[in-house]
Amino acid sequence: MTLEQALARMKELLAAQQAYNHAMGVLSLDGDTAAPTASARGRAETMGYLSGVTYQLLVNDEVKEALETILASRDAVTPMQARQAELLKEDYDDSVRIPMEEYVAYSTLLTNANAAWHDAKERSDYAAFAPYLRQIIDYNRRFAAYKDATRPAYDVLLDGFEKGASTATLDPFFRLLREKLSPVIIEVASRPAPDDAFLHQRFPIGDQRIFSDKLMAMMGIPRDRCGIAETEHPFTTNFNKWDVRITTNYSETDVADSMYSVIHEGGHALYELGTADEIQFTNLASGASMGLHESQSRFYENLIGRSLPFCRALLPVMQGCFPQQMQGVTAEQLYAAVNRSRPSLIRTQADELTYGQHVAIRYEMEKLMIGGDAKVEDLPALWNRMYKEYLGVTVPNDREGILQDVHWAGGMLGYFPSYALGSAYGVQMLAALEKDFDPWADVEKGDLSRITAWLGEKIHRHGRMLTPPQLLESAIGGPFDPECYVRYLTKKFTDLYRL
Amino acid sequence: MTLEQALARMKELLAAQQAYNHAMGVLSLDGDTAAPTASARGRAETMGYLSGVTYQLLVNDEVKEALETILASRDAVTPMQARQAELLKEDYDDSVRIPMEEYVAYSTLLTNANAAWHDAKERSDYAAFAPYLRQIIDYNRRFAAYKDATRPAYDVLLDGFEKGASTATLDPFFRLLREKLSPVIIEVASRPAPDDAFLHQRFPIGDQRIFSDKLMAMMGIPRDRCGIAETEHPFTTNFNKWDVRITTNYSETDVADSMYSVIHEGGHALYELGTADEIQFTNLASGASMGLHESQSRFYENLIGRSLPFCRALLPVMQGCFPQQMQGVTAEQLYAAVNRSRPSLIRTQADELTYGQHVAIRYEMEKLMIGGDAKVEDLPALWNRMYKEYLGVTVPNDREGILQDVHWAGGMLGYFPSYALGSAYGVQMLAALEKDFDPWADVEKGDLSRITAWLGEKIHRHGRMLTPPQLLESAIGGPFDPECYVRYLTKKFTDLYRL
Repeated sequence: MTLEQALARMKELLAAQQAYNHAMGVLSLDGDTAAPTASARGRAETMGYLSGVTYQLLVNDEVKEALETILASRDAVTPMQARQAELLKEDYDDSVRIPMEEYVAYSTLLTNANAAWHDAKERSDYAAFAPYLRQIIDYNRRFAAYKDATRPAYDVLLDGFEKGASTATLDPFFRLLREKLSPVIIEVASRPAPDDAFLHQRFPIGDQRIFSDKLMAMMGIPRDRCGIAETEHPFTTNFNKWDVRITTNYSETDVADSMYSVIHEGGHALYELGTADEIQFTNLASGASMGLHESQSRFYENLIGRSLPFCRALLPVMQGCFPQQMQGVTAEQLYAAVNRSRPSLIRTQADELTYGQHVAIRYEMEKLMIGGDAKVEDLPALWNRMYKEYLGVTVPNDREGILQDVHWAGGMLGYFPSYALGSAYGVQMLAALEKDFDPWADVEKGDLSRITAWLGEKIHRHGRMLTPPQLLESAIGGPFDPECYVRYLTKKFTDLYRL
Repeated sequence: MTLEQALARMKELLAAQQAYNHAMGVLSLDGDTAAPTASARGRAETMGYLSGVTYQLLVNDEVKEALETILASRDAVTPMQARQAELLKEDYDDSVRIPMEEYVAYSTLLTNANAAWHDAKERSDYAAFAPYLRQIIDYNRRFAAYKDATRPAYDVLLDGFEKGASTATLDPFFRLLREKLSPVIIEVASRPAPDDAFLHQRFPIGDQRIFSDKLMAMMGIPRDRCGIAETEHPFTTNFNKWDVRITTNYSETDVADSMYSVIHEGGHALYELGTADEIQFTNLASGASMGLHESQSRFYENLIGRSLPFCRALLPVMQGCFPQQMQGVTAEQLYAAVNRSRPSLIRTQADELTYGQHVAIRYEMEKLMIGGDAKVEDLPALWNRMYKEYLGVTVPNDREGILQDVHWAGGMLGYFPSYALGSAYGVQMLAALEKDFDPWADVEKGDLSRITAWLGEKIHRHGRMLTPPQLLESAIGGPFDPECYVRYLTKKFTDLYRL
């Protein structure tokens, strides 16, 4: 195969992958947002068929030869072509190492595990989910060994979600969070909680929908390229930079719930919306890693969205949408209310200060699960003990305990650390940004355009051209330093609670 | 190729077609309902790619051999397998006769023509659309000749939408409608119009959405298998009997507009929802023809939905959703208002009595266009002259005249007659149903279940197992008789307007 043939073959593959990913992405989005419930069966048929086609598109000898030909001639191809081939080769290697039958059996297991988890959570019945979890753990251990038998299985899994992540870097990270933040958490919890009752009045969903549009406008999200829908759990999905979708979930008695979902998902959306034109319709047009994606969503949600200047800009918008409910509230009261911090049971509802501890618990548990040092039947007791240790809270049942997250039922073992890493990355990005300009006068006016332009230049536009570590270093202008994150949280909550 | 191999090949093809049709259907639905505007470009890429794949799936020598093998051994296969092969062979023949380059060029033309039509309609500028229309007419003439050069081109086109339809049957049909109904239309127009002002108050969209749910419930549409969304033009789409979607369009000052869209599309939906389990995920799971589909939608919309007994059932539901607006209205007033008849400009807003004349005009024009007897630049004048002749109305501009329908821009030449045929079929079906039982006591109670069960048994469950003429004959228990339709309309409007 000549280099020219190899490049043509790769181009063809990328176009095909785009089409199938787009189709499967829309099928999945439709299933979550608009499809009637009984449609699941037909969708499973179609998704199963198309998954088979996409597997065969990638995993065949001609593709292998094309990718190897291109990677052997890196100097003769463009950097974009080289990076495309590199990423495809990683996907190829990951796919080819797992025997097709095991891959299919695992996919079926996950479909069933997801349904079993839903049921088990509803009935708070861990025993009903345990057999699935046991098998998922076994598969993940085995798959990790297929990929790289020379490294600890959990490191291989972590690396799958966040290139370069390992227990060697995460252990000290989470240890630091625990050591430095636990005293702050305890101190904050001893102080009177700020009043947030005004956020828990009745906020009609119709008015909240209009408010979402205004929030997206404040964030500078171009609506001709980004839609919003409603799902049980908020998420962001993207097909190309001209077609990004976010979702949210409205609670009639908690206006901040959807508000911060919209800002969080809006951050993910801005990342995808900001990828460069020239990488669209290729495998480079997407966020670089889960951690970097979370760095953007949590940047907008917390560093901007839960800042006092943003609350000053937000207040008149909220008062416009909810005049009765927000009457007489000051920006300072809003700021205090949206930063109310208390150790709690549910990760997704945790405040900025305690959030990292929720992630730390899951990280420690996953190490034990994958390492084989904890029996599946002992996990709930372990979970409850760690919540007591890390956050001082008593878990009343498994529904609000070990069954709360969908991730393990979906086979996502090693994903959680991305959330905490992303939060920490964001703080260093903000520090780097503040060296270039002072963003807070803009934020107070509700103008995030310069901030988004800065992040666009440093992060968004690159898509997957750079590796996550390259991208992170170029954005923060130095090595990753979790102390920066700890200092930020300590200062913010010390000031807020006048410790 | 053995018969066994041929059957396996066909089964494989049907599964693949299902998956691709499902994916492309959802992409298209998403584009019409939820996708942001700038997404069109990416969707065109994906649809283009997937269309190419589906063409190649069908048009290849192996498929040809498989289908011919099956059709040569009809006695050795099941009736379902024979019918599947028969329909696939028709699709194969239609596709293979059109050179691939022409097919691709025509697809591109249609994409551009659609955009040009939208623009031209908005600016009421026929000249801007004429060059596209000219090319579309030329392609359709040529494609008709490729399919069957021995028959007049327009007959070939008609047959493509409604198997068995031709000018030989449609000429007398439309002549009859004109001769017998024109006097009634003129007479009705001379009488005072019933008061329908109460339907044109302010009806908030949020309340109309709830009303749509209640209408779907009245129709017995299972919501776990059928969704509703909003689009500029209402339509129905289906992926299998467990996943059907209808759309509507709300006008805040015309409650009947969306109401009859929901009932009309609900009729289409009941057809698809009622196809038999055993034909799902094959090419048999769909309506038999456009005319038969319209027979169902217009059955529910007009024969049921615009009947006095249905208005009696509808009134309390409307009063529940719109207590102020519907206060003091009687069922008889509602019945008179939703049957207000006046010659008008816009087909989709025409009443039941005048509707056929709108279709007749388009039919006569298409005959001239495809026959080559009318120049493209002369079509607007022709249109306006015919509206004057057939309906006595003066067309003020091309936007409300020849540019009003999307069909020609979409290459659908020969489609319009299905609307009138469907209306006429429905009347004969109702007559056949009334021989089996009296439906009107049920309708007055708002219970359509026995009616839907009857239609399900006669029409819906069969899908495409029978040919349209077979299906029609078995449903109406005799030959097609347009006099029946004319008598129904004459009696209804004579009574309504006390002629």
